[in-house]
Amino acid sequence: MSANEQWHELAQQLRVDSIRSTTTASSGHPTSSMSAADLLAVLLHDYLRYDFQQPKAPTNDHLIFSKGHAAPLLYAVYKAAGAISDAEMLTLRKFGSRIEGHPVPVLPYVDVATGSLGQGLPISVGLGFAGKYLDKLPYRIWVVLGDSEMSEGSNWEAFELGGFYKLSNITAILDMNRLGQRGQTMLGWDGDAYAARARAFGWHTIEIDGHNLDQINSAYAEASAQTEKPTLIVAKTEKGHGFAEIANKDGWHGKALPPDMAERAIRELGGERNIIVNVHKPEAGTPATHGEKAALSLPAYDKGSKTATRSAYGDALKALGAARPDVVGLDGEVSNSTYAEYFAKAYPDRYFEQYIAEQQLVASAVGLQVRGYKPFASTFAAFFARAYDFIRMAAISRANIKLSGSHAGVSIGEDGPSQMALEDLAMMRAVFGSTVLYPSDANQAAHLVAEMADQPGIVYLRTTREKTPVIYGPDESFPIGGSRVVRQSDADKVTVVGAGITLHEALKAYDQLQSEGIAIRVIDAYSIKPIDARTLRAAVDATGGRIVTVEDHWMEGGLGDAVLEAFSGSESAAPADHQPHLIKLAVHEMPGSGKPDELIEAAGISAAHIVSAVKALLR
Amino acid sequence: MSANEQWHELAQQLRVDSIRSTTTASSGHPTSSMSAADLLAVLLHDYLRYDFQQPKAPTNDHLIFSKGHAAPLLYAVYKAAGAISDAEMLTLRKFGSRIEGHPVPVLPYVDVATGSLGQGLPISVGLGFAGKYLDKLPYRIWVVLGDSEMSEGSNWEAFELGGFYKLSNITAILDMNRLGQRGQTMLGWDGDAYAARARAFGWHTIEIDGHNLDQINSAYAEASAQTEKPTLIVAKTEKGHGFAEIANKDGWHGKALPPDMAERAIRELGGERNIIVNVHKPEAGTPATHGEKAALSLPAYDKGSKTATRSAYGDALKALGAARPDVVGLDGEVSNSTYAEYFAKAYPDRYFEQYIAEQQLVASAVGLQVRGYKPFASTFAAFFARAYDFIRMAAISRANIKLSGSHAGVSIGEDGPSQMALEDLAMMRAVFGSTVLYPSDANQAAHLVAEMADQPGIVYLRTTREKTPVIYGPDESFPIGGSRVVRQSDADKVTVVGAGITLHEALKAYDQLQSEGIAIRVIDAYSIKPIDARTLRAAVDATGGRIVTVEDHWMEGGLGDAVLEAFSGSESAAPADHQPHLIKLAVHEMPGSGKPDELIEAAGISAAHIVSAVKALLR
Repeated sequence: MSANEQWHELAQQLRVDSIRSTTTASSGHPTSSMSAADLLAVLLHDYLRYDFQQPKAPTNDHLIFSKGHAAPLLYAVYKAAGAISDAEMLTLRKFGSRIEGHPVPVLPYVDVATGSLGQGLPISVGLGFAGKYLDKLPYRIWVVLGDSEMSEGSNWEAFELGGFYKLSNITAILDMNRLGQRGQTMLGWDGDAYAARARAFGWHTIEIDGHNLDQINSAYAEASAQTEKPTLIVAKTEKGHGFAEIANKDGWHGKALPPDMAERAIRELGGERNIIVNVHKPEAGTPATHGEKAALSLPAYDKGSKTATRSAYGDALKALGAARPDVVGLDGEVSNSTYAEYFAKAYPDRYFEQYIAEQQLVASAVGLQVRGYKPFASTFAAFFARAYDFIRMAAISRANIKLSGSHAGVSIGEDGPSQMALEDLAMMRAVFGSTVLYPSDANQAAHLVAEMADQPGIVYLRTTREKTPVIYGPDESFPIGGSRVVRQSDADKVTVVGAGITLHEALKAYDQLQSEGIAIRVIDAYSIKPIDARTLRAAVDATGGRIVTVEDHWMEGGLGDAVLEAFSGSESAAPADHQPHLIKLAVHEMPGSGKPDELIEAAGISAAHIVSAVKALLR
Repeated sequence: MSANEQWHELAQQLRVDSIRSTTTASSGHPTSSMSAADLLAVLLHDYLRYDFQQPKAPTNDHLIFSKGHAAPLLYAVYKAAGAISDAEMLTLRKFGSRIEGHPVPVLPYVDVATGSLGQGLPISVGLGFAGKYLDKLPYRIWVVLGDSEMSEGSNWEAFELGGFYKLSNITAILDMNRLGQRGQTMLGWDGDAYAARARAFGWHTIEIDGHNLDQINSAYAEASAQTEKPTLIVAKTEKGHGFAEIANKDGWHGKALPPDMAERAIRELGGERNIIVNVHKPEAGTPATHGEKAALSLPAYDKGSKTATRSAYGDALKALGAARPDVVGLDGEVSNSTYAEYFAKAYPDRYFEQYIAEQQLVASAVGLQVRGYKPFASTFAAFFARAYDFIRMAAISRANIKLSGSHAGVSIGEDGPSQMALEDLAMMRAVFGSTVLYPSDANQAAHLVAEMADQPGIVYLRTTREKTPVIYGPDESFPIGGSRVVRQSDADKVTVVGAGITLHEALKAYDQLQSEGIAIRVIDAYSIKPIDARTLRAAVDATGGRIVTVEDHWMEGGLGDAVLEAFSGSESAAPADHQPHLIKLAVHEMPGSGKPDELIEAAGISAAHIVSAVKALLR
């Protein structure tokens, strides 16, 4: 057979298999798969370099289906590559199957979960950084984009960063099938408009008929030859192409064909096939290294001095960079506030400025961790809200990323509420498998930064803008999941739990209450998730069930709720015998501008308010 | 004086005042104000149509400082307009002042809070819809953009929608001062690149020297004459322009000048002035109306039938549209899933398709409510995570918007975790002043949709994909802040609280436990925030403190935490005497694909798990 005939046969198989799996499942996206089948057939047959026996081989290309709903096509590709069996492919969308409705990295060939649109290209930028600037390996990143998702702003963050960093290892393939979920896209088949936009963002563009196999072949060859710019191939396609009854017709998004239609479609497509492609394997190679692993020498701060935990983050990240060549720094154009700049200046080759594009900031971290790096991404804590969907999806990607948010809470002062993170603890706690850390002093912050490197999942560090007293020695240890009982005696009447800046208010309250003859236990809950249930339960037992939590955060979802979690039960573990009587002090009015102390007082989370809450519990 | 001299004097005053206020505050952004002073002087003097005595006059222009950190310039403009006094201007960043570090609508001339970059232009698109298609009034929307924020993807969502909807009433003024917070922006002074990008997105562009007053004047005239396209003016400027010591120098972002420097700067700028501009007032006019207010006729569903709450949302929104001409519909290209399409088809003139651009979806709602409309914006609940920063900022804007998220939880089934909202309750609860509703049946959903219209703040409705039994009559009432005790007897041993789909699992558990001789109280907590503390406390008292919460959501921040909130205290209110012993059933493993029932069972939130938890509490 000619190359063209081989591509055609393979493409028809991919279409047939996309129909078979979705009709078997009675749901899914056959038509969005069929539009891109020719594009994938040529890619698999001639361009993808991938050893399906060794999915983690360092020189493998990366194939990312940003249009995750076209998962049936991806699974058909895996079957055609001999990676999964026809039988497994047909378990699409069944409970317990790896062949989920949208791709997830439960399958070793899937790098990241997709299905929330507009994420594949931003993540590919992270992979592009790794390939071009860190690994220095010739693998290519192939990204399959839907046309509907081109309206996601996140894609344009990826276009601008991809263009700026000249990520010529990225080829984005736009399956321009004209039809979105409920009708025509904004641009329809206006391929020139997509191409003009991409070019304006610094990309090389190629416009083709996405069902013309020779044009596809030429486009891949041209894209692969680029050395200065990433490439967008704008491929004009038809949704449902290959089955005339539904091709290019509205109303067929996300619908499996009923069995009789499926039969007609498969007949029109030439019937089932069982082609196995001998996918080109990549050449052997190993990633470049960036120094030797060395002993970690964390910064040390003198007890009694004052340092902002954000600057301890910067110091510790730089120290971590010296010890570990796999640590990579990212920041959203505020590195002189988050202090990521210490790392950036020390290790410019391992630092990638993400400018003010927080979705891209997180996506780059996700892409980098696919390649085994330990990305630390920082911005103001408030602005991680911009990237919450990326963080949510990163958890589904089983990604290991480290996020550091500075400028938390009203204690930032004059800048006002737009710059104050007051919902970040709630947001980050509600991410599957996440770790949420909130140091109260610089030595603690430094230790926690070191622990973040190998902590799996989404790890979030909340830092404080203001300088706070150093209360711990540099050699103390602060394990994730632990806490610190900072003040205690047998006479303690109330437990007060603070974290970060409010711990210092709790300590002031301790002194005042002590002078009035009231003893309180003060706990530093630096590990918000997991929370130290054992210590909290013991403290509540010891203080007659009386507990005050105090946090620079809205009432909902933060420290107070985390503390209460320590007392509830599950089917297999009973709730605590002694339930706490809790007063939760948290921000409950919209703050304005002012000095940190004024705002802490007005928010009701100052030492004076703690004293008053303690007394209220003792009445 | 010539016009040019008048503009110049005014611009110098704006610079001087930006320096005076920030130096008085010892913090803030004088240099980012100075770069845009010439642009604002000409605008205020000759183009802005605004009655500062009547800031809510319907024909006033809108002036949005997307670069909110240039607030000192905005306040200087207000002073020059005679709207605020010099003395008030000098309270910048002081505790209790309206003159906050970033603009907030505590000042009546400010439409929306800014300071999280990349929000002003998306919000202006919502205002653009209002002006061109609803109010049909000739007011213009002037948006001052920073160049750093052009990297936010959200701006490109605004560019694409603004172009697509031909919002010629928008003039965006890009203050291209080259310097970001920590160095040069990606594009520096490459004005051609910005202009090419905007043109590719369908905008008219004008490139000027942003310190050439005549060019500024011509640009505004040209922009004002546009009828088909929105305009981007790319103005090349210098940060700190007018004071040679720091003009166009790095290291001066967000720093007030020390008093001695301020003195030198003010001298170089020609000293203090006290020009008051007689700002052009708009012509009188009234917004177009869209039908008459009529009695609301909500849909009714038969008890015992099955309807998905998402389709009840669609029915009720359409009914609301018939009753209220101020209701406007928005959706993120999934209106055939959220059922916003019922409204869209009935009232196409009041529906704006936002395509897959969730940040823009929320921003459009914020813009529309500035004009007094009641915007209902819908998408999959999971994808509101994309817009979390916009929702956070909408609260700071004191905006009244209504959000409806469909496809919540594992119960959506086969599509898998990327499409499942499992953190939305946590996310929405942690928004200041928010209301969070989660109906369990169609009649309840319809009533809650009606109540949303006049509920202030951020109001979120969580709907379910699956059809669920109708358990309430169509004429029952469901006030926000209430709950429903669905099953109760004097013999109740445990309280079970469900909401949405889990209420039906609780009812199944009730039947099974009843058959085993165990009575439980079942509560429908349809109002997650505010939660019905009184009913919950009474139920816990009546059932020996034993309570099970069950939710289709992660463990953190959802229904279980909301219920616990009913039992904690504050400085002025003691915690509940009887604290609950609670088992929280929630999703605690990453789900995959499967049938809804399979996933509910696997997640540990099915009737069987409720039965098991009830028994665990009784052991």
